[in-house]
Amino acid sequence: MTLSYVYPGTFAMKRGALEHPTFAYETWGTLNAARDNAILIFTGLSPSAHAASSPDDPSTGWWEDMVGPDKPIDTTRFFVICVNSLGSCFGSTGPASINPTTNAPYRLAFPILHLEDIARGGAAVLDHLGIDVLHTVLGSSMGGMTVLAFAMLFPTRARGLVSISAAARSQPFAIAIRSLQRELIRSDPDWEQGNYPLDQGPLKGMRQARKLGMISYRSADEWAERFGRERASSTQMEPGAFGMEFEVESYLEAHALRFAGRFDPNCYLYLSRAMDLFDAADHGGTLGEAFARVRLERAMVIGVETDFLFPVEQQEELAVELARQVPDVQFHRLASLQGHDAFLVDMDRFRPLIARFFA
Amino acid sequence: MTLSYVYPGTFAMKRGALEHPTFAYETWGTLNAARDNAILIFTGLSPSAHAASSPDDPSTGWWEDMVGPDKPIDTTRFFVICVNSLGSCFGSTGPASINPTTNAPYRLAFPILHLEDIARGGAAVLDHLGIDVLHTVLGSSMGGMTVLAFAMLFPTRARGLVSISAAARSQPFAIAIRSLQRELIRSDPDWEQGNYPLDQGPLKGMRQARKLGMISYRSADEWAERFGRERASSTQMEPGAFGMEFEVESYLEAHALRFAGRFDPNCYLYLSRAMDLFDAADHGGTLGEAFARVRLERAMVIGVETDFLFPVEQQEELAVELARQVPDVQFHRLASLQGHDAFLVDMDRFRPLIARFFA
Repeated sequence: MTLSYVYPGTFAMKRGALEHPTFAYETWGTLNAARDNAILIFTGLSPSAHAASSPDDPSTGWWEDMVGPDKPIDTTRFFVICVNSLGSCFGSTGPASINPTTNAPYRLAFPILHLEDIARGGAAVLDHLGIDVLHTVLGSSMGGMTVLAFAMLFPTRARGLVSISAAARSQPFAIAIRSLQRELIRSDPDWEQGNYPLDQGPLKGMRQARKLGMISYRSADEWAERFGRERASSTQMEPGAFGMEFEVESYLEAHALRFAGRFDPNCYLYLSRAMDLFDAADHGGTLGEAFARVRLERAMVIGVETDFLFPVEQQEELAVELARQVPDVQFHRLASLQGHDAFLVDMDRFRPLIARFFA
Repeated sequence: MTLSYVYPGTFAMKRGALEHPTFAYETWGTLNAARDNAILIFTGLSPSAHAASSPDDPSTGWWEDMVGPDKPIDTTRFFVICVNSLGSCFGSTGPASINPTTNAPYRLAFPILHLEDIARGGAAVLDHLGIDVLHTVLGSSMGGMTVLAFAMLFPTRARGLVSISAAARSQPFAIAIRSLQRELIRSDPDWEQGNYPLDQGPLKGMRQARKLGMISYRSADEWAERFGRERASSTQMEPGAFGMEFEVESYLEAHALRFAGRFDPNCYLYLSRAMDLFDAADHGGTLGEAFARVRLERAMVIGVETDFLFPVEQQEELAVELARQVPDVQFHRLASLQGHDAFLVDMDRFRPLIARFFA
């Protein structure tokens, strides 16, 4: 069940502020008496706080294989918290939420979002729950970057850190892809400069942005194995043959259609840009200096060789810099075929690593 | 100077036919008495026949460093021909050309285009010039695939073959990127189902398709070196910070703007789909069987490690299959940073290979 914490007062952001924003989160397991068995999960761009099913909400979570009783993140031992990112649209305050001072949706009046704001939101939830120090802060993709922001803003609030398929900053290639995704949304006339009716909006732009996202989340090798040159079952001959000829084309269309109605376009734009803007080195002159204040005991960085959004070399660099400050750092370079998305699908590779870290 | 050859009669295509289409081409150097020093160049998707400058047309060609007197493709020794692909918009007949039977542009009434049709067009120009057998047929990217189509359709018309940054077929990843590019053009309302005024058309869609193209033509490493996280000089602060914040964003915008008005959108769609549809194995049950009839003496395949549109493994596979039939096959795997486009920019790596092949 998603819980809501309404922040009492003004929530300061990196640029600007929000009046009593809501933070949506879910928890699994029980906080122990020492209050030292909590794991905080930051998510990628699109998931909600519903990482796993629970008696209150039996629907499948986005990391169902990983979080639960006797699973790698074992909820019989740990108190697990997953927060819906500030700026998202699954319960936490974002551009689609009502601004209490105007009684209208924020839309583009929402302050420019940074991953540091999302990290501060997580910390606010911890304050609310009475948790000073986490066993581990963990995140994947955008969540893995948010974990770094959290560690730098609150250098003593976590003993362990896990970063999965993330990096200390985005490369221009990843920025270019996200920039074009945003352009596809913003150039859809139905975006209306951000003022679309909240139940409609730029579906075409969202569909196209999602297709580009999927192209960047997987790997060429996976698709070659999976689709080859298989033809779509319902090929229609049309002038120029521009219809769905290949199976990979109808696969993308089906997935994009499913996503487009489910995620608020303005929220997508804000979260996407926040990933571009993040640079861990902003917390120090260099990455090393930024990490210098961090008081972690252990860290694990997991990267995937076929990830071209966050290349594994960037993740290795992150592990190397962490290792200068943190006594116990593991780096795992996985040969998954599934690219950036591997942590959601290649469970046979990820499960043992996560299980061992928390054993 | 671009020459035009008007085909006398009906030109049969893989599906359909054209009435006396035009083939635009340029030549450099002189055909020798034995008529055995001709090199035919097929181009990538977007270039014209103007591969290099000449006394008649001193403007810089798209492969200026490679073709000319005493250059790697030495026009004091060879008679070099470059053909504008059938379906393109630089002199050869394509969707933007006037259909002589209706006196209106073909637009989507142009037959579905295959690279085999482009290869046949090259052969028609050779017939016209009285050339039976080429010294070498050479092509890069789409042109490299066209070269394979040429060799299979006309197994005795070339003694040498050079394929650069191409493959025997497109992988689903490349198809997905091109499919989305076409969708961006076709979903621009100004496309008007292909019936846009020929001097206007879907500029927004073309600009976006070009950005996606550029993302796929280069490599993440090159951009990381070149742009890093450099900010654009003219950043404008706007709501949500969605403007041109990073240098890579303004670079893409400038290039896309330049391309959008220069290439006919329908031609782009036809050529793009032709690349998806090509599969050398269609000329035999397997790639090996398809090559079995080819009577080449020498072949060279060049691939680039950072090319993710035509991964170097695909190009190695092509070289291996060629080597089963052709006495002398070279394969070069280049470490260029410039990805698929390296043959246009990384001249220091490409020049010596081409020069040695033609020495």
